[in-house]
Amino acid sequence: MAKNLEISALLDYYGMLLTDKQRETVEYYYDDDLSLGEIAENTGISRQGVRDSIKRSETILLEAEEKLGLMKKSERLKNSLEQIRRNIDIIDGKNMKIYRSDIINESIKKILKELDKLDEIIMN
Amino acid sequence: MAKNLEISALLDYYGMLLTDKQRETVEYYYDDDLSLGEIAENTGISRQGVRDSIKRSETILLEAEEKLGLMKKSERLKNSLEQIRRNIDIIDGKNMKIYRSDIINESIKKILKELDKLDEIIMN
Repeated sequence: MAKNLEISALLDYYGMLLTDKQRETVEYYYDDDLSLGEIAENTGISRQGVRDSIKRSETILLEAEEKLGLMKKSERLKNSLEQIRRNIDIIDGKNMKIYRSDIINESIKKILKELDKLDEIIMN
Repeated sequence: MAKNLEISALLDYYGMLLTDKQRETVEYYYDDDLSLGEIAENTGISRQGVRDSIKRSETILLEAEEKLGLMKKSERLKNSLEQIRRNIDIIDGKNMKIYRSDIINESIKKILKELDKLDEIIMN
């Protein structure tokens, strides 16, 4: 059974769509790198049952990304946020060194606070 | 059958999770405000079939939001983006009137471009 490296990342976005049992098997397999036999032992499911559960979970996760595209969107969001941070830094540098405007400084602080919030929302 | 006003909004986020037939019935009902009888006529499904399809779709949409929370997240993202825009405007105003820095001006333009991208990603 070939491992699909995308699965681990998709778990962060769509893990909630799996049943507890499905999530358990697929996390053992992808996050903890256990063998099918080890997972069977840990969960009390047959080896074939573990394999089926993982396969079914993979299908759910891949279909969710195909339909909702959250992982792809999230990458684009992160890229844009990084660009914004970079340019805020430039403005901040200029302001600190040359203009020393309190109003600009205050606005920069508020923007940085919102950027942190955006990061946090996107991350979970 | 009581209409749940949240459903129309949830369709924008999770419509892809429905089958074509489910999406069709629920859009007729919530977006076009057709009666069950009218939808039955349009789709060739029985009135009871239409009702079942809408109920099932509502369950799928509400569960998706409960599990993934995209609508709630999206509202929070929009709020933060609005705050950032507001503060960029303040910086822009100050810069235009007083400091006239080309470097700041250029960074503001880049940030506004990224904010537009973020809006677009969030909106669809």
